[in-house]
Amino acid sequence: MSLALNKKELTEYLEQVFPQVHKDFVVEDLTEASIRMRLIVEDRHLRPGGTVSGPSMFGLADVSVYAMILARKGRQSLAVTTSSSMDFLRKPDGRADMIAECKLLKLGRTLAVGDVLMYSEGSDNPVARASLTYSIPPAGSAAAAFG
Amino acid sequence: MSLALNKKELTEYLEQVFPQVHKDFVVEDLTEASIRMRLIVEDRHLRPGGTVSGPSMFGLADVSVYAMILARKGRQSLAVTTSSSMDFLRKPDGRADMIAECKLLKLGRTLAVGDVLMYSEGSDNPVARASLTYSIPPAGSAAAAFG
Amino acid sequence: MSLALNKKELTEYLEQVFPQVHKDFVVEDLTEASIRMRLIVEDRHLRPGGTVSGPSMFGLADVSVYAMILARKGRQSLAVTTSSSMDFLRKPDGRADMIAECKLLKLGRTLAVGDVLMYSEGSDNPVARASLTYSIPPAGSAAAAFG
Amino acid sequence: MSLALNKKELTEYLEQVFPQVHKDFVVEDLTEASIRMRLIVEDRHLRPGGTVSGPSMFGLADVSVYAMILARKGRQSLAVTTSSSMDFLRKPDGRADMIAECKLLKLGRTLAVGDVLMYSEGSDNPVARASLTYSIPPAGSAAAAFG
Repeated sequence: MSLALNKKELTEYLEQVFPQVHKDFVVEDLTEASIRMRLIVEDRHLRPGGTVSGPSMFGLADVSVYAMILARKGRQSLAVTTSSSMDFLRKPDGRADMIAECKLLKLGRTLAVGDVLMYSEGSDNPVARASLTYSIPPAGSAAAAFG
Repeated sequence: MSLALNKKELTEYLEQVFPQVHKDFVVEDLTEASIRMRLIVEDRHLRPGGTVSGPSMFGLADVSVYAMILARKGRQSLAVTTSSSMDFLRKPDGRADMIAECKLLKLGRTLAVGDVLMYSEGSDNPVARASLTYSIPPAGSAAAAFG
Repeated sequence: MSLALNKKELTEYLEQVFPQVHKDFVVEDLTEASIRMRLIVEDRHLRPGGTVSGPSMFGLADVSVYAMILARKGRQSLAVTTSSSMDFLRKPDGRADMIAECKLLKLGRTLAVGDVLMYSEGSDNPVARASLTYSIPPAGSAAAAFG
Repeated sequence: MSLALNKKELTEYLEQVFPQVHKDFVVEDLTEASIRMRLIVEDRHLRPGGTVSGPSMFGLADVSVYAMILARKGRQSLAVTTSSSMDFLRKPDGRADMIAECKLLKLGRTLAVGDVLMYSEGSDNPVARASLTYSIPPAGSAAAAFG
């Protein structure tokens, strides 16, 4: 088990491939088995009542698992999300950034599964849990990832 | 089984409670058991490769079920999403709007479950499937919905 | 779109590959896009209070999608379940058989997704909803399906 | 945070309320935040190829979360499963027992969410991940839990 991209290389690559959204996210920590990702919460991520929106949390979970796969498999990876499940546990604090702690449960040849817990920064109680499955097309394949 | 809000009343209420995002969504059709919702796809919903982003699809599914609960329960409803699952089936067409067909599978006293199929307009093959569970606090209760 | 196995061939094949459980299940109807499967509810499927157990419902959903993939792909298929989600909507009636109505939402080269609604026979209100994703190894491949 | 039932009390109570299946399961360890549960794998839990069946893994996950809620809330708890998601990661070893490591992510007034990782005993790589949501009717309420 080793990293194909370190934290700096991963950050630069995310800037290239996600020009629309990379400014929302910061790679805080990266190991061979886990990543910590920050969502910089801005007004556009909020919902009435001062909570962080569901789509923003989905996006944070999705980018965390994707970044972890990239870090392990390298830049050529064309992984696409195929399934996800999320549980919303507590009301997020819209005045705090959101921190995702993501672990890869499986990194196979064609499938990867990541698990994510999300916290409002400064709190120990998770606001949401997510797991996401990615399909990974064979390296060198021209096949679309939507298997 | 009857509607507490008709299509016009529902549309107006969504404009009030979702000032950030209501312009993205149009209620296309509403019956006592189902709703059809359109996501007007703009550049900000896209990802590289011209596909619609996962968070945009999550948002469409979420607002569809929420709107259906509002239409049945009325404006006082404070339902919050507690669980969701999504399957991503095909690559969406970023040049087309996305259409969600949503049915309520259950509308109980304290829990509601909705099922959603999403299509790129003009195609018969679904691009994603979602189901979402909402917790509904008792009417007149000051209790937070995050049971 | 066509069937590789008809209802009789599918039933015989399930008897071969599921010797432990095939007597629990009956293929009631089969089309190119859908299958109806019956769980013959016996005491061993019940829980206190006279309801059908969660594992029994999971098993019914799982076998329904698997049988539908077999019917379309043929006997060589080695599909394995990779993800599932279920919502439990109402209390099942332990005195009635359970009927699953299953549709394939996607049957790709390497992934298949099926959607299932389950009913206590004689009722129109679903007791549970499930979706399951299967990984399908390439035909002729010796690769394990756990991608 | 404290336990309403200790390991011995919990084991005795499970024997009472799950007469059909309690012999399959052993409470291995119990803390205020987590439980370790063993599935004693017998022939009836297996599928062709010597793997543990999906319904058996679902049952292990379900009973683990339920037992954890009982241990915290006490015997009067009437929690019912409302949602579940599972990811199947690797082929289980049918010759080994299966061990579930379960944590409660949330234990609210009306909803509880538990997270489960399952292992074939003797291996460090999880074979499956599950999360389950339970609805908890108010204490003293005659209301059915299927809210």
